[in-house]
Amino acid sequence: MTTDYEIFELGDFALQRGATLRNASLAYKTFGTLNAAKDNAIVYPTWYSGQHYDNEWLVGRGMALDPDKYFIIIPNMFGNGLSSSPSNTPEPYNAARFPKVTAYDNVRAQHRLVTEHFGIEHLRLVTGWSMGGLQTFHWGALYPDMMDLLAPFCGSAKCSRHNFVFLEGVKAALTADDAFRDGWYVDKPHKGLRAAARVYAGWGFSQAFYREELDIRTLGYSSLEDFLVAFWEGFFLDRDPNNLLAMLWTWQNGDISANELYNGDYKAALGAIRAKTYVMPGQTDLYFPPEDSRNEVDNMPNARFVPIPSIWGHFAGGPGTNPVDIKFLDDQLKELLAS
Amino acid sequence: MTTDYEIFELGDFALQRGATLRNASLAYKTFGTLNAAKDNAIVYPTWYSGQHYDNEWLVGRGMALDPDKYFIIIPNMFGNGLSSSPSNTPEPYNAARFPKVTAYDNVRAQHRLVTEHFGIEHLRLVTGWSMGGLQTFHWGALYPDMMDLLAPFCGSAKCSRHNFVFLEGVKAALTADDAFRDGWYVDKPHKGLRAAARVYAGWGFSQAFYREELDIRTLGYSSLEDFLVAFWEGFFLDRDPNNLLAMLWTWQNGDISANELYNGDYKAALGAIRAKTYVMPGQTDLYFPPEDSRNEVDNMPNARFVPIPSIWGHFAGGPGTNPVDIKFLDDQLKELLAS
Repeated sequence: MTTDYEIFELGDFALQRGATLRNASLAYKTFGTLNAAKDNAIVYPTWYSGQHYDNEWLVGRGMALDPDKYFIIIPNMFGNGLSSSPSNTPEPYNAARFPKVTAYDNVRAQHRLVTEHFGIEHLRLVTGWSMGGLQTFHWGALYPDMMDLLAPFCGSAKCSRHNFVFLEGVKAALTADDAFRDGWYVDKPHKGLRAAARVYAGWGFSQAFYREELDIRTLGYSSLEDFLVAFWEGFFLDRDPNNLLAMLWTWQNGDISANELYNGDYKAALGAIRAKTYVMPGQTDLYFPPEDSRNEVDNMPNARFVPIPSIWGHFAGGPGTNPVDIKFLDDQLKELLAS
Repeated sequence: MTTDYEIFELGDFALQRGATLRNASLAYKTFGTLNAAKDNAIVYPTWYSGQHYDNEWLVGRGMALDPDKYFIIIPNMFGNGLSSSPSNTPEPYNAARFPKVTAYDNVRAQHRLVTEHFGIEHLRLVTGWSMGGLQTFHWGALYPDMMDLLAPFCGSAKCSRHNFVFLEGVKAALTADDAFRDGWYVDKPHKGLRAAARVYAGWGFSQAFYREELDIRTLGYSSLEDFLVAFWEGFFLDRDPNNLLAMLWTWQNGDISANELYNGDYKAALGAIRAKTYVMPGQTDLYFPPEDSRNEVDNMPNARFVPIPSIWGHFAGGPGTNPVDIKFLDDQLKELLAS
C-alpha cells in the first residue's frame, strides 16, 4: 500500500495523564517547501475523526494557505487512525486500553515534529477547524513566542460544559449497543455507530440549515432520511468506534490551562497568547456558540472576534462543504497573513 | 390504588392513520368549577412524557390559571401512561404494536371530552408547553371558532426538520440497546434509556444555561455528572420505552395541516386560526427556536410574538423549574386572559 503521508517516530511518548505510548507515531503531510530562513511554516491540525485528507480543501495555489508561499504541515491527531490510535496500537495499549491523550499531548508531539524533525523555530501561522481549533489555541498558550498568527475557527480553547454534554450523548448512543462490548468488539457495533451518527446530525448543522433544506437543495441528498443515512451514518460507519471514543475524550478534556504552565487558570492561559489571532466561530454553530468565542477574545491581548456569517452551523468551518463559507474563511486568512 | 384523575371512555376510537384504538381512554384532571354559562373553561394539554401532575405548577389561586375563576381541564396525551398508551393497552395493540397516534387524534379526543362529557361549546383559552403547545395549535386550527384565546409556549404548529432530526437521535440511542428487543423488552433497556437521557440533556437546556452552571447553582445538583444521572437518567428510567417512542412519533409527525381540513397547506392552517394568540417561544430554546415561532406568527391573523427572555432553553416553559420564567409566563397569560 502506498501512502501520501509521512510518519514521525516519537519513540516512547509519556502522556500527560500518566501512560506511555511506546513507539508512538505522528502521521503528517506537508505541502510546499520550507524556505532557507525556515520562517514560512504553517501548522494546520486535524479535527474530530478527520485525517489530513480532510484538511486539504483549505490548501491550494491562490488561496491563503498557498503551497507556493508556505510550508504547510498537517499533523494527524492521535486517535484518528493514522497517528497512534486504538485501531493501530499493538497490545497492551490497543483498542479499549488505548490511553487517555490530551490536546496538550497532541500539540507537544507536533512541536517535536516541527522543531526536531524540521528544525523550525518559528511558525507563521497555526490554524484549524473544530478540534483543530482546540489544538490551535493550545499552540498559542503552550508556545506563546513561537508564532506570529493564530486562526482557530469553529473551535474553543476549552470544552464548554454544554459541549461536554452533547458529546456525552454521542458516547452513550455509541456504547449502548451490546456489540460494542466495552470496546472489545469483534463485529462492528453498527447500531451504536448509526445511533451516534443520528445524534450528531442534530448538532452538526443549524436549525436554519435544516429549515432551508440545504441538505437537499445544496448538498443534493434526495430526502432528509437520505441525508441521515448516506451522509451521517455513512460517515460514522467508516470510523473505528474506539478511535471515535479516544478523540471524544480528548475533546471533552480539552483545556489550554490544564497543564503545569497554567494549573487550571484559564484566563491566564488565554492572556498568555501573544500571537495576533482571529477567533472565527460559526454564527450558528451549536457546539461552539459565538458567545464562547467572544469570551475568549475578551481575555486575549491580541485577538479579534470574526464570526462566520453562515447558517451552516458547525460546518461553516469545513470540511470544504460550502463555497461561500470557504471564501469568507480564506479571505480572513489572507487578511491575517498579510498583516 | 386511588387516583386523582378521571377517565373519559372514548369507545372504539378510529385513528387518523388507520388503526382503531378499542376501548380507548382519555385520562384527565380538572381544577375549579364549570360555571352555569359554561364559558369559563380552559384546556391545558400535557407535554412529551408529562402527565397532568406535571402541568399543575401553572395552576393556582392568584395565578392566571386560577381555579377560583376558571374550569381548567388537563387532558393527558395518548402514550403518556395514563391515557391509552403502549404500557396500558391490552393485546393485540399493546407495547410495540401500539398504533400511530397523531396530535390531531389527541385533540379530537379532547374535543369529545369537552363537548360530549362537559357540554362545553366554547373555551376561554387553550394553552400548553412543548407538545402541549403543538396540541394548542391543533385546537386553534381544527376548531377555529371554539375559543377566544390561545397560548402555545415553547412549542410549534409543525415539527421542524431540525426538531425531527434531534428526535431521531433520541430514538436511535434508546433503540440501540439490544435489551429493547424491537419493543418486546422483558427487562427494561437501561442502557438505551440512559443513553436517550444523555442525548436529551444537551437539547433540553441552552448552552448559556450550562455555561452559567445553573444545574449546580440554581437547581442544586452537586456536579454536571450528578445532573446527568440524577435529573436526566432518573427522568428517563422512570418512563416506559414504548410510551416514549409512541409520543416521539406523535411529536415528529405533528403538523396542524396534516388532515382533511387543510390537506397539507400549512400556511392555510395557520391563517385559519382566529383566536387571539400569544406565541411564546423560549429565547434560547434549541428545539423550537424563536425564528420558527416568528414564522408562525407572521402567518396568523391575530397572533403576537412574545419570546420568553430566558437562558433556560426549552425549560423556560416548564415544568415549573424556574420562578422567573414562571412569573413571566403567568403575567403574559394574565394579560391575555384580561384582554
